[in-house]
Amino acid sequence: MNGKVYLVGAGPGDPDLLTVKAARLLRTADVVLHDDLVSGDVLSLAAPAAVLKNVGKRCGTKVIRQDEINFLMISFASQGLRVVRLKSGDPLVFGRGGEEITALRKASVDYEIVPGVTSALAAAASAQIPLTDRRATSAVVFVTGHQAAENKTNWKALVSTGATVVVYMPGHEYSGIAERLLSAGLSGETPCALISRASSPAQRVRCTTVGELGSAPTMPAPTLLVVGEVVRFGAAAIHQAYGAWVAPPREPEVDHRAIGPGS
Amino acid sequence: MNGKVYLVGAGPGDPDLLTVKAARLLRTADVVLHDDLVSGDVLSLAAPAAVLKNVGKRCGTKVIRQDEINFLMISFASQGLRVVRLKSGDPLVFGRGGEEITALRKASVDYEIVPGVTSALAAAASAQIPLTDRRATSAVVFVTGHQAAENKTNWKALVSTGATVVVYMPGHEYSGIAERLLSAGLSGETPCALISRASSPAQRVRCTTVGELGSAPTMPAPTLLVVGEVVRFGAAAIHQAYGAWVAPPREPEVDHRAIGPGS
Repeated sequence: MNGKVYLVGAGPGDPDLLTVKAARLLRTADVVLHDDLVSGDVLSLAAPAAVLKNVGKRCGTKVIRQDEINFLMISFASQGLRVVRLKSGDPLVFGRGGEEITALRKASVDYEIVPGVTSALAAAASAQIPLTDRRATSAVVFVTGHQAAENKTNWKALVSTGATVVVYMPGHEYSGIAERLLSAGLSGETPCALISRASSPAQRVRCTTVGELGSAPTMPAPTLLVVGEVVRFGAAAIHQAYGAWVAPPREPEVDHRAIGPGS
Repeated sequence: MNGKVYLVGAGPGDPDLLTVKAARLLRTADVVLHDDLVSGDVLSLAAPAAVLKNVGKRCGTKVIRQDEINFLMISFASQGLRVVRLKSGDPLVFGRGGEEITALRKASVDYEIVPGVTSALAAAASAQIPLTDRRATSAVVFVTGHQAAENKTNWKALVSTGATVVVYMPGHEYSGIAERLLSAGLSGETPCALISRASSPAQRVRCTTVGELGSAPTMPAPTLLVVGEVVRFGAAAIHQAYGAWVAPPREPEVDHRAIGPGS
């Protein structure tokens, strides 16, 4: 029997937000190679006999190189095993899904890609922020904070698009991102929301403005930053502006920082 | 008993790509108000006793206005029913999820948002294209073709970001989009992929370049357009460049249009 590698999106953390297919593959996998960010609740769906291995690049002090991950996938599959390569969110948004595909192709290993709910979508649902909304913008862009640090992003162009900007992994302090957005020409009045641990029971939403973002306290990772006028339609902003709060799925703690008219 | 409205992402069409939560909500809903694009396979998961209503804005000749959809959600929920408002892909990416949330808040109706696999992720998985890849770009933007027609998008800024561009609903002919991309300064050599009916058994992938896009024949809707250097890492491009084809999940038909070096 030939083995196979499934590159599977684990979604944001809540096992309820796995796809039906991802949950089934996880239950039937021989080997699960997972990222750091994949939650224990998700991993607990794997069969008791399955080999689980954390190949997250920040696991403890050990650093697993990408070519080692590729080697593990290929060698397990070559032994005829069903390998689930479980990646936080969606397998083709950030992370190195593309490089893993290239390695699997070169090794002629059978593989399949199973999309997942990327963190931006889960964070938006948690904070009740429409990422696109014809009342504000009809485009949304996903970037990483990490990449921002390397200055690979054309922030001026990004800001000029008028798109909602979702920053994955904005880092431990937000002044860097805030500065980039401001010097790219974004108004300090632009609303933004930090969403920490979206979809988990510990999720929290903090609304602020780009001008105030730099002084916001660090929230527990993983955190996403949503920037744009659409944040005004979010639950926290509504709460602030109208004093009304409609219960979200898991009632995130909301920090009532000033947002909206007059702030 | 109080009713509740669930704004649920139905994913791209394959019921296997519903989230576990979406599938459960669908099985237990009293009423399902769904878009045109939600597949029959997904709808068949609803309980036999459930009321199913197509509120797609293009269903047959009848046009259902947004305020009528809002009215239906609110009145069913006010009768104590569990209402699933089922939206293709993710409920907060395109569509009018934001406006529906505003209406539900105003009516003090209890609601919850359940994210889903947005079409761009399913299309990328089908065509095996990493939407971000550090070998090419680390940002991805979602826009709509419809919006392009209304000229709301700053295409020049969009192209300058260097992000992968995913165009939802690129329309029945692609010359309009191609022209916008070219006049915004994008090279005609830039690879792009049209993905038709992603995740369905009828899915098809066509790779071409932005310069050739205008003369590409129309593919069956729903179709997505992915534009950017990352397309070179896709299965169809690899097929073209190296003559090797690794079977995708459901073996899309691939049109071998020239792509890659020398094309």
